[in-house]
Amino acid sequence: MKNYQPALFFVRFSLFTLIVIFTLQIKATAQTSENSVDAAFIRKIYDQALTDGRCYPWLEHLSLRIGHRLSGSTGAEKAVQWTRAMLDTLGLDSVWLQPVMVPHWVRGDAEQVRVSGSKKYGTFNLNALALGGSVATPANGISAEVLEVKSWEELDQLNERNIRGKIVFYNRPMDPTKIRTFEAYGGCVDQRVSGASRAAKYGAVAVLVRSMNLRLDDFPHTGTLIYDSTYTLIPAAAISTMAAEKLSQVLKEEGKATVFIKMNCQMLPEVQSYNVIGEIRGSERPNDVILVGGHLDSWDAGHGAHDDGAGCVQSMDVLRILRKTGYRPRHTIRCVLFMNEENGLRGGKKYAAEAERKGEFHLAAIESDAGGFTPRGFSFDADGAVFGKFFEKISTYESLLEPYGLKLTKGGSGADIGPLKGMKGLLSGYSPDSQRYFDYHHSADDTFDKVNKRELELGAASMAALVYLLDKYGL
Amino acid sequence: MKNYQPALFFVRFSLFTLIVIFTLQIKATAQTSENSVDAAFIRKIYDQALTDGRCYPWLEHLSLRIGHRLSGSTGAEKAVQWTRAMLDTLGLDSVWLQPVMVPHWVRGDAEQVRVSGSKKYGTFNLNALALGGSVATPANGISAEVLEVKSWEELDQLNERNIRGKIVFYNRPMDPTKIRTFEAYGGCVDQRVSGASRAAKYGAVAVLVRSMNLRLDDFPHTGTLIYDSTYTLIPAAAISTMAAEKLSQVLKEEGKATVFIKMNCQMLPEVQSYNVIGEIRGSERPNDVILVGGHLDSWDAGHGAHDDGAGCVQSMDVLRILRKTGYRPRHTIRCVLFMNEENGLRGGKKYAAEAERKGEFHLAAIESDAGGFTPRGFSFDADGAVFGKFFEKISTYESLLEPYGLKLTKGGSGADIGPLKGMKGLLSGYSPDSQRYFDYHHSADDTFDKVNKRELELGAASMAALVYLLDKYGL
Repeated sequence: MKNYQPALFFVRFSLFTLIVIFTLQIKATAQTSENSVDAAFIRKIYDQALTDGRCYPWLEHLSLRIGHRLSGSTGAEKAVQWTRAMLDTLGLDSVWLQPVMVPHWVRGDAEQVRVSGSKKYGTFNLNALALGGSVATPANGISAEVLEVKSWEELDQLNERNIRGKIVFYNRPMDPTKIRTFEAYGGCVDQRVSGASRAAKYGAVAVLVRSMNLRLDDFPHTGTLIYDSTYTLIPAAAISTMAAEKLSQVLKEEGKATVFIKMNCQMLPEVQSYNVIGEIRGSERPNDVILVGGHLDSWDAGHGAHDDGAGCVQSMDVLRILRKTGYRPRHTIRCVLFMNEENGLRGGKKYAAEAERKGEFHLAAIESDAGGFTPRGFSFDADGAVFGKFFEKISTYESLLEPYGLKLTKGGSGADIGPLKGMKGLLSGYSPDSQRYFDYHHSADDTFDKVNKRELELGAASMAALVYLLDKYGL
Repeated sequence: MKNYQPALFFVRFSLFTLIVIFTLQIKATAQTSENSVDAAFIRKIYDQALTDGRCYPWLEHLSLRIGHRLSGSTGAEKAVQWTRAMLDTLGLDSVWLQPVMVPHWVRGDAEQVRVSGSKKYGTFNLNALALGGSVATPANGISAEVLEVKSWEELDQLNERNIRGKIVFYNRPMDPTKIRTFEAYGGCVDQRVSGASRAAKYGAVAVLVRSMNLRLDDFPHTGTLIYDSTYTLIPAAAISTMAAEKLSQVLKEEGKATVFIKMNCQMLPEVQSYNVIGEIRGSERPNDVILVGGHLDSWDAGHGAHDDGAGCVQSMDVLRILRKTGYRPRHTIRCVLFMNEENGLRGGKKYAAEAERKGEFHLAAIESDAGGFTPRGFSFDADGAVFGKFFEKISTYESLLEPYGLKLTKGGSGADIGPLKGMKGLLSGYSPDSQRYFDYHHSADDTFDKVNKRELELGAASMAALVYLLDKYGL
């Protein structure tokens, strides 16, 4: 028995092994062949985008014919009507407008911001844009001494004794050593968002903020501020990085500087606006949605070409590409152009509320809101309870997307799709190369000519490829 | 015994296992700690490049103060003197000029290329640049009918009967579906390189070539041609992609088109020029060299900013960064700015011949000649006998470089370092994002403003990081 048992064991082991190997081989062969079907279809998506793409001429129209489109503006209204009309040409199953009330802030006349009476430099202008949502100055403007701070600690130490009656100048620059520029933005944007009220708390009469821009140039970059209504609402403006350097230099050389600010921006009554939506209905699970989207509103400077015209036209092109390739999705594939991401997120909130009311499940939502640059990948997020399983599944796609330069990582997604997170679907942010994004973001320099046709098209194709894989394999 | 032996075996096994585990753990701990030393040093390299980099102001000078610098021109001579002077400021161990004789081709007066007597469009200009090395037309120009071809098969089928006395127009465009644009270039550039002689073989009097450009714009892109001296040397020019489309349209609509070409380019006697070289001597193996380089010459249009001013200033900055960080290399680290890559490769050939003569071993040579765009990685090449081992070693670096967006792949390296391949060292090409490269390449549009400061600096840092790892760990 002693001699026999090992042999029996060996035979049993061998049989078992053979069965396992055989089963695995069948599975592997099936996987390999399915893999080559997928690879060929993804290749077809890219070919369609790169030879017959529509996103670039659409962006040209949105940028040059319509231009910027802040919520409540005629530009925003025209963009709603025009993108709806474009979606209507794509042979989708439905295209509609989803009503949403939006804030209507207007900049008014061009801002006047100048240093007056410098001993060495005399009186000179600082290129400035009021921050979105800022109140106006008094009709004759404000003239006051400037205090420069680089941190909240500095502000708190100066406190009311030094700050009352002054203009606070936030001059903490973006950190150039961050490889992903969004991290550098994250380390600075608090100055713009909460700087006004934190200075008002100590009696400041206005604030100036160094633009969120890694370059030295003369474009001011606006963006939203949030007032804390506990304190007086004081006017706030962004100045260009070059203006910030110059103002800082005067303060260093002369010990003090007086700045004049005049702005007549105001908040008007809310306006009826819309999210623009188009979809291809799913053949098997029409009530499960895979969403691609961007935001249709922009700041009121430049063309809003990278932020976020690019994301809108890419999302529209995803549906067009899938139609053109003849793909019949199992789930509903929906393109959503959200209104009011920049100063209220009303579109994103309204969309999620309506989805919940109708009992729609969003299997996945992908937002493109990081510019029309060369694709680097997608970042993924989901509710903690389901994310581990989701990400494991998604990681199996990586070898299919890697030839197109795409990496799949964990991370943030997008502001507009954020309100969907509670529904326990997958959220994803399209991640193009980030090096040049803040050169243009929220400034008059965010124009159509800054977008490269191929880079934009590659983004649309990348999103379509991910949608295809999510639709085919689920989560 | 029967009962005892398994126990003994187990004890023996356990002891052995413990020793192995213990040894592996020591090694793993040492590796982990060395890994964090390397990670910290690479971080320091990037910090230095991104906060204190010199490559961008150097490129500004090279572009705006010196400008283009075709071999034999005064621009090339100035570039040699100025880059040498800059290297002299870096506290290197030696800086020198390596003499090399270079061809001296001159474009002469602005090219005249026009369609004459179209029924629908009358007479109109085609934006053109003579190909580098082209002969002149007769003094009064050439006027002849145009034949459009998209393939060599088409040319051969037309043959002498149709081609004699005509101008051949090569209009095969770059393939937009290639993700890496260098592949698309590779699929077209034969028209430019050998189109003249292949048409002359059938009696053509001149050739026009559609520019190697993925965009539709009005910049002609020049580049070198190679004549086969078996056939008559006929003049050859590149026309812009828009001009190519227009000419093709006339041929389609009217069945024929007559083009007038007048150029007076010529080849002058060879000129004395130089490779510019600077080095930090190795502390342990001074005769083993790690080279970083680009080519200092450019075509005679635009600034030669991406091609290859970028590669030159990045290579110079690698040495500066290593000096600034206080790193003491084991091997000699050498920056070489090669002369005459564009129309002769004399600098690269001379450099390799001198290295061989002096018995220097080039452990590794890294060339940056694909533009100053965001880093995507490095591609590696070597003699077949050693490449497998090299690439295995290099692959162990990948986790240290991956946080900076770098992938390490097998592939081509660079033209200037190609002649070193026989010495059995490692060759590498720095691979930035390729999407926009051919928008600018060899055209008047390759100007300083097309280069982004951060993207350029990230490239210099990436090269310095790879040099550090190669120097520390060898091959």
